[in-house]
Amino acid sequence: MKKIAVILAGCGVYDGAEINEAVLTLLHIAKAGASYQCFAPDIEQLHTINHLSGEQMTPNRNVLVEAARIARGDIKALTLLDANDFDALIVPGGFGAAKNLCDFAINGSQAQLNPEMLRAAKAFANAKKPAGYMCIAPAMIPLIYSAGVKTTIGNDVDTANALQSLGAQHIDCAVDDIVIDEQHKLVSTPAYMLAQSILDADAGIEKLVAALLKMS
Amino acid sequence: MKKIAVILAGCGVYDGAEINEAVLTLLHIAKAGASYQCFAPDIEQLHTINHLSGEQMTPNRNVLVEAARIARGDIKALTLLDANDFDALIVPGGFGAAKNLCDFAINGSQAQLNPEMLRAAKAFANAKKPAGYMCIAPAMIPLIYSAGVKTTIGNDVDTANALQSLGAQHIDCAVDDIVIDEQHKLVSTPAYMLAQSILDADAGIEKLVAALLKMS
Repeated sequence: MKKIAVILAGCGVYDGAEINEAVLTLLHIAKAGASYQCFAPDIEQLHTINHLSGEQMTPNRNVLVEAARIARGDIKALTLLDANDFDALIVPGGFGAAKNLCDFAINGSQAQLNPEMLRAAKAFANAKKPAGYMCIAPAMIPLIYSAGVKTTIGNDVDTANALQSLGAQHIDCAVDDIVIDEQHKLVSTPAYMLAQSILDADAGIEKLVAALLKMS
Repeated sequence: MKKIAVILAGCGVYDGAEINEAVLTLLHIAKAGASYQCFAPDIEQLHTINHLSGEQMTPNRNVLVEAARIARGDIKALTLLDANDFDALIVPGGFGAAKNLCDFAINGSQAQLNPEMLRAAKAFANAKKPAGYMCIAPAMIPLIYSAGVKTTIGNDVDTANALQSLGAQHIDCAVDDIVIDEQHKLVSTPAYMLAQSILDADAGIEKLVAALLKMS
């Protein structure tokens, strides 16, 4: 049985992992006959957003503790992720991917990765093990892979330009489709960068998981 | 297009709505060609649990504000739920269903419903509109429907006995199956009362949504 590592950025679209994307990722991994283990960095969130009002809340929350809600408690600190133990990596989106796993939401084309995220993602890249990034998570791709790496965040011009400034080649992509970079064994899908419904997100995520498992 | 009201008890299995169950409910409603609107009571949670350690956390959190994470902000206070606007009701599980929507987790066979939950659920029952309850949420059923109503929480003997003390007729049920009470237009499935994987929960929830839409 193939094993997939899933890195979560918290729990909730505005400050953590997008919950639908995370659950659909786990669903499609299981449906494809593979297994998963969730990981998250044991760090404070950039901030905590009231998802009803959109306003910032206090006190701030911890990424690993909140991500544990999605994983029903079965989650490990990102420092414990060893790429040798897994066949592939998936990173769901949500603003947490651009706020907690890296600082793309603040620094755009000057973004840097969280050191643990960089270590874990680089280990999969160096081992030539496939990886899948969805929604805004591909903002991290140019910080992990070599210049010219192909990815998508959908079709948002400003975000795509920032990705290109960081060194990636952005490919416009429909919400229910994926972009594959065969050389880097990398798959991406727009998910909630474009999705108007859970069905839109589901279609792209199902394809991402299938493509990833085919490459692994 | 049929419209389903979904009542969420928060965000996280130990103190709110079970996240996988909630998302799979939304997925299967959309896949069946129906639409949904999420609701949650605007009340404090019974308590807030750190899902990594299992320990209680402070400060406590609000059910509606946390449930908004699952609904991507598109959620309304339970006081605004008018059964006339919907074809059916679904209540996912998670301990929040037994801690926030009623007090079954504390008071067992002496349980009482949150007044807003009682009003909303009774309105669907009185209008003979179908309703689906999953996981531990069927603990509320004997407090809403007349004595002898048929439901399932899977096969846990103590919980089933408490349900029977409250007046329901408990039917043992496999994780991937549903129990239907045709007279009351009521469907229930064990979900994470029994599920060993997201696939187990998915199978029962898909059947619950299909049966509910067939009755509506």
